[in-house]
Amino acid sequence: MKKRIRQIVDYKNKPPLRIINIGGTTDVNANLTLYECGDEMIAVDCGIGFPDSDMPGVDVVIPDFTYLLDNKEKLKGIFITHAHEDHFGAVPYLLKELNVPVYSNDLVHGFVKSRLEDRVSKQLAESASLIPINPDLPEVNVGCFKVSAFGMNHSVPNTMGFAINTPQGLILHISDFKVDWTPVLDKPLELGKIAKYGDSGVLCLLSDCLGVTHTGNSRSESTLSATFDRLFEKAEGRQILVTTISSNISRMHQIITSAIKTGRKVSLVGRSIRQSVEIAQSLGYLNFDPNVFVRDKKSKNLAQKDLVYIVAGCYGQSNSALAKISRDENRYVSLEENSLVVFSADPNPPGTREDVEKLMDELTLKDAEVIYSEIQDNLHVSGHGMRGDIMTIAAAAKPKYFIPVGGTVTKMRAYKNMVEDLGFGGERVFEQLEGESVVFEKGIAKKGKRVEVKKVLVEGKDGGEVRPIVVKDRGVLASDGVLIVLVPINSKGVVGKIDVISRGFVYVKESGDLVGSIKNKVHNVLEKNSNKLNDWGLIKNLIERDIHKYIRKQTGRNPMIIAHNIKV
Amino acid sequence: MKKRIRQIVDYKNKPPLRIINIGGTTDVNANLTLYECGDEMIAVDCGIGFPDSDMPGVDVVIPDFTYLLDNKEKLKGIFITHAHEDHFGAVPYLLKELNVPVYSNDLVHGFVKSRLEDRVSKQLAESASLIPINPDLPEVNVGCFKVSAFGMNHSVPNTMGFAINTPQGLILHISDFKVDWTPVLDKPLELGKIAKYGDSGVLCLLSDCLGVTHTGNSRSESTLSATFDRLFEKAEGRQILVTTISSNISRMHQIITSAIKTGRKVSLVGRSIRQSVEIAQSLGYLNFDPNVFVRDKKSKNLAQKDLVYIVAGCYGQSNSALAKISRDENRYVSLEENSLVVFSADPNPPGTREDVEKLMDELTLKDAEVIYSEIQDNLHVSGHGMRGDIMTIAAAAKPKYFIPVGGTVTKMRAYKNMVEDLGFGGERVFEQLEGESVVFEKGIAKKGKRVEVKKVLVEGKDGGEVRPIVVKDRGVLASDGVLIVLVPINSKGVVGKIDVISRGFVYVKESGDLVGSIKNKVHNVLEKNSNKLNDWGLIKNLIERDIHKYIRKQTGRNPMIIAHNIKV
Repeated sequence: MKKRIRQIVDYKNKPPLRIINIGGTTDVNANLTLYECGDEMIAVDCGIGFPDSDMPGVDVVIPDFTYLLDNKEKLKGIFITHAHEDHFGAVPYLLKELNVPVYSNDLVHGFVKSRLEDRVSKQLAESASLIPINPDLPEVNVGCFKVSAFGMNHSVPNTMGFAINTPQGLILHISDFKVDWTPVLDKPLELGKIAKYGDSGVLCLLSDCLGVTHTGNSRSESTLSATFDRLFEKAEGRQILVTTISSNISRMHQIITSAIKTGRKVSLVGRSIRQSVEIAQSLGYLNFDPNVFVRDKKSKNLAQKDLVYIVAGCYGQSNSALAKISRDENRYVSLEENSLVVFSADPNPPGTREDVEKLMDELTLKDAEVIYSEIQDNLHVSGHGMRGDIMTIAAAAKPKYFIPVGGTVTKMRAYKNMVEDLGFGGERVFEQLEGESVVFEKGIAKKGKRVEVKKVLVEGKDGGEVRPIVVKDRGVLASDGVLIVLVPINSKGVVGKIDVISRGFVYVKESGDLVGSIKNKVHNVLEKNSNKLNDWGLIKNLIERDIHKYIRKQTGRNPMIIAHNIKV
Repeated sequence: MKKRIRQIVDYKNKPPLRIINIGGTTDVNANLTLYECGDEMIAVDCGIGFPDSDMPGVDVVIPDFTYLLDNKEKLKGIFITHAHEDHFGAVPYLLKELNVPVYSNDLVHGFVKSRLEDRVSKQLAESASLIPINPDLPEVNVGCFKVSAFGMNHSVPNTMGFAINTPQGLILHISDFKVDWTPVLDKPLELGKIAKYGDSGVLCLLSDCLGVTHTGNSRSESTLSATFDRLFEKAEGRQILVTTISSNISRMHQIITSAIKTGRKVSLVGRSIRQSVEIAQSLGYLNFDPNVFVRDKKSKNLAQKDLVYIVAGCYGQSNSALAKISRDENRYVSLEENSLVVFSADPNPPGTREDVEKLMDELTLKDAEVIYSEIQDNLHVSGHGMRGDIMTIAAAAKPKYFIPVGGTVTKMRAYKNMVEDLGFGGERVFEQLEGESVVFEKGIAKKGKRVEVKKVLVEGKDGGEVRPIVVKDRGVLASDGVLIVLVPINSKGVVGKIDVISRGFVYVKESGDLVGSIKNKVHNVLEKNSNKLNDWGLIKNLIERDIHKYIRKQTGRNPMIIAHNIKV
C-alpha cells in the first residue's frame, strides 16, 4: 500500500512547476533547461554551442544567463548529465557570474575543473562547489526537488539521466543517449529503473530526439574494436595515425587496446586529445601501463612502425594537429610514406565536410592511405540513439507528457510522430523553442510564458561577449568589403582633399576611375547641402546613401560605406 | 582484316598528344580538359564552380583561360558533355574573350544561348557558333581530332560521352554519368558502343569518379515516380510544394506526370526552375498540355488543393523562392497550414546542411508536413554512378590508361584502387591535379609539363574577376573586423588629432579605454621616430605593427589595422 500512496500527489498548496528551455532545443547544443517551482529553481546541463557560418570570428555560443542571473537567489544547483562540452562547457562562464553548486559525476567535475583553471582562475577551480551525484549515490535534496541519477549510454562513459521529483510529479530528464548493451568502459543503461519509474507514474519525459529520423537501433561502441584490430594488423611495419573526437574516452580505450595487442606504443598529439586522456587517466578511466604512452616530443626517436598516434583534428579543422601534420608543420610528427591514417569519427557533422575533404586530399597527396567511413564499415558509431532506441525509452517511461530536446524543429516533429506511432496522443508532446516553457499544475501541462533569450556570442582569449551588431558588420565586410570616405569639412566648407580607403572591395590602385567618380559624388552632396555643413550627421547619411547607390549601380556590390569627418 | 589494321597506329611523324586538366579534377566542378596535338587543340567541357567558404562574396569560380587564350589560334572547338552549369556554365565567359565553335546537343545549346542573352549580349547569343553533335550524328572532324558522341545517363537528359580519335589513339571522355537502364525522358546508355571501342583498343579513358566510394549501383531515376504518385495521393485536399534542382529535367517530368495523374495543375516558382522548364519545353523535352501550367501570379486564385508548386531552393538558399515562401515573403504563394513540402534533391551536398535544416525548421514551424530523404525512401537518386556503375564502364572500355575526373584526390585514389581490383595495374592510372598533364607518345603515357592555373573568382553583375588579395582581405575583415587609425602628420610633426574608426572589431563608443591606449601607442611611435616623419611608408608599417601586437595581447583578436596619413 505504501508504494501506491507515494504516487498520489497532493496538489493542495503546491506551486506549479515550470520547465523552461533556455537553450539546446532547436539549436542542438548550448543545452540548458530550468526547473522552476515557487521560489526554487534547478538547472539541467549548461553547455556551449558552436557558431553558425553567419557568425564569423565567434568562438563559442553560450546560453543566455539573463533569467538565471535575474533570479539567482532561486537557483539551487546545476545538474550535468555527461562530460561533453555542449552540456557542461558553459559552467565556467556561469560560475564567473554566480556561485552555485554543480552536481555531476567525477568525469564531468574533472573537465569543469580543468576548464576553470584554463579559462577563469585556479582560485575558482579550487573554490567551486562540485557535488557528486551518480547512479550509486542516494537521492539528493535541493530545495523542493529530489534528484537521483540513473545510468544511460552515450559516446562518453557514465552518462546519466536524472529522475527529478518535483511537487507536481516525477520528471525524467534524459539528454544525449543511446541504448548500448555492450558498451566500452561503461555499464549498460539502467532500463529497469526507467521502467520502474514508468510503472509508478512519470509526469514528463525530456528525451534526446536527434537520431529519431534514422530507423533501427544504434550499434554498440564495442562493434568497432575488431575494426581497429584488423586495420592495425594489416598495417604491420607502417606508421599509424588515428583521429577521433577528444571527448570520446571509450574510443580512445579501444584504439589504445588495439595498439597494445599489435605491439605498438601510443602517442597523443594535439592539446585537446592529451588533456582529455590525462583527465580520464587521473580518474581511473584508462588503466593502462604508463609505459604504453610516448610523449610526442620523443616519438620521432622511435621506429614509426611501433607507434599509433592518436591525433586531434577529425573534423579537418585547419589549425588542428592532424591538419598541421598533413602540411608538414608539426614539430615532432612527420608523415611517412604509406602511412595509415584512420578517421574514426562522425563522417559529416554540419559545416565540416569541405574541411574534412581537403584534409583527406592533402593526406592522400602525401601518399598516406586514408581510411574513412565511406570505404570502411564499423569505423564509427553514433553516440545518439536512433528511432528504435528513442522509442524504447519513451515506451518504458510511458510519461503523461513529452518534451523532445537536443534536436531541430524538424526532429521534434518527427519525435511527435513517433509518440503518435506508440499510441500516445500527439497533444502530449511539447515542441519547445529556445525560451519557451511548459507549466504543470494539478497534473495538467500547458504552454507557459516565454522567457526572452538571445544567442550570446563569445570570442577571444578573454571570453568576452561580442555584440551582435559587430558580428553583423563582419558579415557585410566579408561579402563586399569596406569603403571609407574621409571628408575634411567644417561648417564653412571643404578644407582639404577628399580621400578614399578601401579593403575587400576593389583594389584602389587599380580603380582610379571609380574612386574619382566617388569623390565627385561627395563633392556634389557637399555643394547641394552647403548651408547644412554644420550638421555632420545629416551630411554623413547623405554621402553614405549616395555612394552606396552609385556603387551598387556601377558594380552590383554592396560594400560597407563609412563617411568620416576629418576635423582639422 | 581491315578492322585490325585500323587499330595499328602509325606513330611516324605523329605529334604527341597532351591531355591537360585545367579544371574539374580535385575541385569536382569548373570542368575543363584540353586535348593538344601539334598545333591543334580541343576542349571538353567548360563549366563554372562554386566558391568555397573561404571565398566570401564570390559568386562563381571559372576555369583559368590563360593557357587557352595564349594558344587561341590552336583551339578548334569546345565539346560539352551535358547541360549542367559545372560543365557548360563558363562558355559565355570564354566566348566573351574568344570566338570558338561549341559542339553539343540542343539542350546544352539552349542553355548556353539563354545564358549568353542574360549575361553577355543578344548579339553574341545570335552570332555564337553552336554546332550539333549527338549519338545520332556522324563523326565530327576538328583538325586532327575526329569526335563522335555516344549516349550516357545522368540527372539531365541526353548526357553524352565523347570518343575522340587522336593521332596517338582513341580516347573516351565520360564526365558525370550513371548507368540507368530505365531512365526518364532519355535512352539507356550505349554500353555496346563503349564495349566495341574497348574491343578495338582504347588508349585512355577519362571517367567520372565521384561515386566510386559507394559500393553497389546507382538506382534508376524512374524508381521515384511511384513515390510522387503515392505522396500526392496521400495529400489529397492539401497544398503541395516540391523542391528540386532546376537542371533536373527528368525529375520535373516525373513530378508533372504525378501532378496530372492526381488531377492537379503545376505552377513553377523561382526564376531558375521557370527558365529551365521553358528551355526544355521549347526543345520538346516536356511535351505536356500547356493548360497543365499555371503562372505563379494566377495560382492564388485557384483552389490550393488542385495545385503542385515546383519551387526553387532545395539547398536552403536564403534568397530562394522556397525560403521566401517559408518566411511569407513571396508575392504570389502563401503556405497553407498542413501543406505538404517535398524535398526531392541531394540531401547533403557540401556546405548546404545548415541552410537546409534551417529551411525545414521554418517550414515545420509553419505547420507544413516536410518530407525528406531521411524519413522517406525513393525521394532522390544521384546522377552519379556508384562503384558498380564506374567499374562497368572501366571494364567495358578496358583502356590502356585511366584518368579519373570530377572527384577529389581521395576519390581518384579510390578509383585507382578500383582499377587495381579489376586486375589492371595501378600505374596505368594518372591522378591529375588542376594544371597537370599527361603526354601520350608512341602509345606510352607519361606525366607532362604542368600548366600554371589559378582559381578565377568572379562576382557582381558585371561578372568581373575579383583579385585574390581582395578576397583574402575579406576573410580577415570577416573574422576580426577592421580598425583604421587616421594620423594627421607632415614632415614637421603631428598637425591634428589622431582618430580611430572601427567596424566588426569593437564598438568604439563602448571601448574608450582601448581607443585611448591605441592613440597613445601611435603617439609613442611618432615621438620615437620624429626624425623620420617624412617617410610615411616606414611610419605606417611601425604603427600597424605596434597596434596589431597591442590589440592581440589585449584582446586575443587580429583585426585588420590600417594606418592612414591625413594630409592637411
